[in-house]
Amino acid sequence: MKYWLSLVILTGVAGLRAQTLHSMHFIPFSQVRIDDQFWAPKQQKVATATMDACIYQTEINTPRIRNFEKVARHQGEKHEGIYYDDSDVYKALEAMSYAISNTRDPKLEATADRWIDVIAAAQEPDGYLNTYYSLNGLDQRWTDMEKHEAYCAGHLMEAAVAYFQATGKRKLLDVAIRLADHIDRTFRQARRPWVTGHEEIELALVKLAKSTGEDRYVQLAQYFLDQRGHGYGKGKIWDQWNDPAYAQDAVPVKDQKEITGHAVRAMYLYTGAADVGAMTGDTGYQKAMNLVWEDVVGRNLYVTGGIGSSGRNEGFGIDYELPNEEAYCETCASVGMVFWNQRMAALTGDGRYMDVLERSLYNGALDGLSLTGDHFFYGNPLASHGQHSRREWFGTACCPSNIARLVSSLGDYIYAVDDLAWYIQLFIGSETILPAGNTQVHIRQLTNYPWSGNVRIAIQPESPVRHELRIRIPGWASGVPVPEGLYRYETKQEEPVKIRINGQAVEFGVEKGYAHLTRTWHPGDTVEVELPMAVREVLSRDEVSADRDRFVIQRGPLVYCVEGTDNPGKAWSFWAPEGTAYRAFPYRVAGEPVMAIRIQARGLAPANRGSRVEDVPRTLTAIPYYSWANRGNTDMQVWLPRRIKAVEIR
Amino acid sequence: MKYWLSLVILTGVAGLRAQTLHSMHFIPFSQVRIDDQFWAPKQQKVATATMDACIYQTEINTPRIRNFEKVARHQGEKHEGIYYDDSDVYKALEAMSYAISNTRDPKLEATADRWIDVIAAAQEPDGYLNTYYSLNGLDQRWTDMEKHEAYCAGHLMEAAVAYFQATGKRKLLDVAIRLADHIDRTFRQARRPWVTGHEEIELALVKLAKSTGEDRYVQLAQYFLDQRGHGYGKGKIWDQWNDPAYAQDAVPVKDQKEITGHAVRAMYLYTGAADVGAMTGDTGYQKAMNLVWEDVVGRNLYVTGGIGSSGRNEGFGIDYELPNEEAYCETCASVGMVFWNQRMAALTGDGRYMDVLERSLYNGALDGLSLTGDHFFYGNPLASHGQHSRREWFGTACCPSNIARLVSSLGDYIYAVDDLAWYIQLFIGSETILPAGNTQVHIRQLTNYPWSGNVRIAIQPESPVRHELRIRIPGWASGVPVPEGLYRYETKQEEPVKIRINGQAVEFGVEKGYAHLTRTWHPGDTVEVELPMAVREVLSRDEVSADRDRFVIQRGPLVYCVEGTDNPGKAWSFWAPEGTAYRAFPYRVAGEPVMAIRIQARGLAPANRGSRVEDVPRTLTAIPYYSWANRGNTDMQVWLPRRIKAVEIR
Repeated sequence: MKYWLSLVILTGVAGLRAQTLHSMHFIPFSQVRIDDQFWAPKQQKVATATMDACIYQTEINTPRIRNFEKVARHQGEKHEGIYYDDSDVYKALEAMSYAISNTRDPKLEATADRWIDVIAAAQEPDGYLNTYYSLNGLDQRWTDMEKHEAYCAGHLMEAAVAYFQATGKRKLLDVAIRLADHIDRTFRQARRPWVTGHEEIELALVKLAKSTGEDRYVQLAQYFLDQRGHGYGKGKIWDQWNDPAYAQDAVPVKDQKEITGHAVRAMYLYTGAADVGAMTGDTGYQKAMNLVWEDVVGRNLYVTGGIGSSGRNEGFGIDYELPNEEAYCETCASVGMVFWNQRMAALTGDGRYMDVLERSLYNGALDGLSLTGDHFFYGNPLASHGQHSRREWFGTACCPSNIARLVSSLGDYIYAVDDLAWYIQLFIGSETILPAGNTQVHIRQLTNYPWSGNVRIAIQPESPVRHELRIRIPGWASGVPVPEGLYRYETKQEEPVKIRINGQAVEFGVEKGYAHLTRTWHPGDTVEVELPMAVREVLSRDEVSADRDRFVIQRGPLVYCVEGTDNPGKAWSFWAPEGTAYRAFPYRVAGEPVMAIRIQARGLAPANRGSRVEDVPRTLTAIPYYSWANRGNTDMQVWLPRRIKAVEIR
Repeated sequence: MKYWLSLVILTGVAGLRAQTLHSMHFIPFSQVRIDDQFWAPKQQKVATATMDACIYQTEINTPRIRNFEKVARHQGEKHEGIYYDDSDVYKALEAMSYAISNTRDPKLEATADRWIDVIAAAQEPDGYLNTYYSLNGLDQRWTDMEKHEAYCAGHLMEAAVAYFQATGKRKLLDVAIRLADHIDRTFRQARRPWVTGHEEIELALVKLAKSTGEDRYVQLAQYFLDQRGHGYGKGKIWDQWNDPAYAQDAVPVKDQKEITGHAVRAMYLYTGAADVGAMTGDTGYQKAMNLVWEDVVGRNLYVTGGIGSSGRNEGFGIDYELPNEEAYCETCASVGMVFWNQRMAALTGDGRYMDVLERSLYNGALDGLSLTGDHFFYGNPLASHGQHSRREWFGTACCPSNIARLVSSLGDYIYAVDDLAWYIQLFIGSETILPAGNTQVHIRQLTNYPWSGNVRIAIQPESPVRHELRIRIPGWASGVPVPEGLYRYETKQEEPVKIRINGQAVEFGVEKGYAHLTRTWHPGDTVEVELPMAVREVLSRDEVSADRDRFVIQRGPLVYCVEGTDNPGKAWSFWAPEGTAYRAFPYRVAGEPVMAIRIQARGLAPANRGSRVEDVPRTLTAIPYYSWANRGNTDMQVWLPRRIKAVEIR
């Protein structure tokens, strides 16, 4: 019936001698099929328009693939482009792998196989693989920690694992293994100090370890983690910034307490640290990450789930300094938040990490991709005067393939299991097979989420089985947002979350963010979840001066904004006093069906040329934040003014 | 009587076999004494507060001087800081040289001598001098065009020439000569391709050539100029930007037609190209620079004389895209505009370059220095919501010493001579000695410029002499701004410029921006110039969307702004319709005596909590742009709204 079922054997976690802090693991994308009305069309767009753009830019319009071909030709040609360009090839290949798994498009698979041949031919005899140094002088390799060699290697490993999971083909996996062995010999076995200039290989090595059963790769990941914070990078990296905290190299990972520096680097580091902690049972990383995580979500997280407020260092600034129009909020950093919070959820079994993941996924990350799938945001501001627009590509092209691989691998984030229970982590129309003792259960979600809060879950065990089902109850549905403290919901009359089993309302307890339902499940059982979808106003702590006397509209997991296209000339000239009325209604943004929100607000309008303004009622249309900037350059605001504090004339 | 007169012999241009396009040269700082009420106190502040800050930061608070000491110690210590940090030492030393020339402060001279000893001790036996490579591995020197080795060398040469001019001491000059000879052997004599990653050495080599009479340094400068645009930098520099235009390396210098890339790099390049053109008589550079200059001033110049609108590349963006609040306008780029336009004026004898120089000097550049002399702007925006503040220092510390050396060397820009005439280029209370045939003339300006437009020039020849005196008539005084086209004056009733000789009004012609006065000058002659100081409204071309329906107030050479401190809560909430009245009046900004301007405008004010605004008359106080941000963080606008186009609620 479904190709994806036949891959279960290939993709199961290999039997390492791993201890985990919490035994939860997420079901991989290759065992999950998404068929809803929200994400499935986006996955289709990524498999076509986004992949077309990535392939065109990688193979035709820029020298990225050509650099690999030059290495194989051995004719003394020089490297073109930036030293980290190889990584874009690998990330596109990784995204392609997920897209192939989702669509089984043979043309895409042929492209991937062609690229893999080119990549494999560029590998040096000793396993080293990096076109920048192979073309510009192999004698210089591993001399400059800033030059992203380990970063590129990590992305190769991730692509190799994804392609192996998606197709069962080993060629790229074998390339990755030879490269990992070369790096293991060069550093861990030689005890050679090396701080990875841009983290990434740490998390990739754990993926490789899981796919190959080779424990050495976990040890190598741990070796790299433990190199940080001892001054080994001094004078070798961070020159440009003069600050080891830029690359999380100021103190050892296990001693870190605050989020610092470049946001994407930080996310990849902590994802890798969580992975190593889970594999080794070492709780030291977990302790540090708990503190760092609280620092991120308690003081440095945008309401969109974006992070990294400052463009200057592409990273974190001062606590609570979260400017809206100048927000950097790189797409890749939001993608990294999804990675890291998934690992934190698995390590702890706590649903609040999934709440943050969902916030970053549906807002800060998804905003990076145009509705057409072929234009991208590098930064994702929370307000605009029309100076921001999505682009076809970037010189530093990390974001397009990063959002592509996230959307197409979304199956990775929906279901999880541990020794005790099955978990429904995200509400996405989809199906999977979960283990249950020595039998299996087919689970299928039907929902029009995020537009509707009604979710119907069909449970189909092979035979009746007693087991616990845990269903995530989002903070926004129960009225307690995560991060608690930085933001709060201005709660109006509260509908409760309802759950029915086979049509009968049931009582349920909520623990660590999950409703617990234990019973003997029979074939044909259905669980219906009803999440209240009232429009909520979100307020921030007073310390965030940019958001004072302002609020955000949220409905379900989606943050809304007011854009000029729907409100010509009005997106910056209204206020919505307490008691403003809202109405959700079906709408289209550049063809995308959404629920928009009508706002009854007040406004000021120039009455005539230059001399008067009038106070007028103003009906506004708010759209989901992720859908803005798809209809040309216009004004936009996420944080809406509550009252007139100052009037500006433009 | 004056020490500076005794230095004339040392600082005269050495007798190179140079042809120039136009024979004009500027009288050097060491032969000019400034004693006015505007610049002289600023030079005093630079010699004390600014130099104290530079010395503290360079010697105590950062490892910049310590790196030189480490090289001399030969104990295997590593370099600390950023690879271009040596340049900050040299630029501080250059600024110190001018300050010593202005003040004859023996303590400052002792500090300079101490630094020079440390620097000289760090020179390698073959003349090479760069602490980054001497400490981190000399074998790596000259392998990475991005690493600013030639840039640092250039700043050493500039410092050496300045210190020699100021004191007659040769020690640092000899260091510079050995370094220049090493570079000449390594590149020009070896015909080794090398694109200077950050231009600077080109203009410095011409200074060194003039001070030593050594023509080879001009040839070396030309060698470096002509390396650009042939792909030699490909794969070696511009990696980060993937765009050779970032460093003006896309096409050969003589074929360049547009301004591109990093603004400071561009300014230093064109300054160097003008210098080489002047020395060699090669008109190829001049042709290219005419086109590039038109592109800068016609499409890419802020009204403040600032350039480089984009922080992303610290440089030029799209034509006419000149955002105000997001303007980058690095202080160093405005300083570079002063350098380049001085050279263009000398090459052409055309006063419009001095107009642009004056605009950049009094606005975009001077804004980089706090009134106290010890805080600095790196970027100089034209509007603010209070997010901008001057800082004590920067990780990349190019700007403090750059504005310091400009202010303290201001004597370099006031007087010039060519075969035909004496030139008064800037109106600054000062005196100098100019040649006149085989005799000399003492010239002294008395003026309260820029607050007053009255300038009294005393002419004291040794004996009566027939000669032409050319006095610059600024575009703002005759109603034709430079750049003509991008900005225009909304001219009201026009007072003419008046000139009197010995009290008698004279008729005069204006050619290329100069009034020409030819006569036999007698001891005791006086020329009085009266420049109209009416408040002018400046408008921009429609293509500059950020400035549409807005205007700027200018009085004399100064651009004005409205700041929150003088207008609490009002700096963004007014409009000034046509016919608005202005009145200039004496005022103080943080102690600085200025002429402020009172504006009778209109405003909107919140009438009560959140529901109404009122249209009210509004009296505003505008202050000179250079003086803003000296009284804490507040709102500020340079471009003032003409009418209500849109109302924004904050």
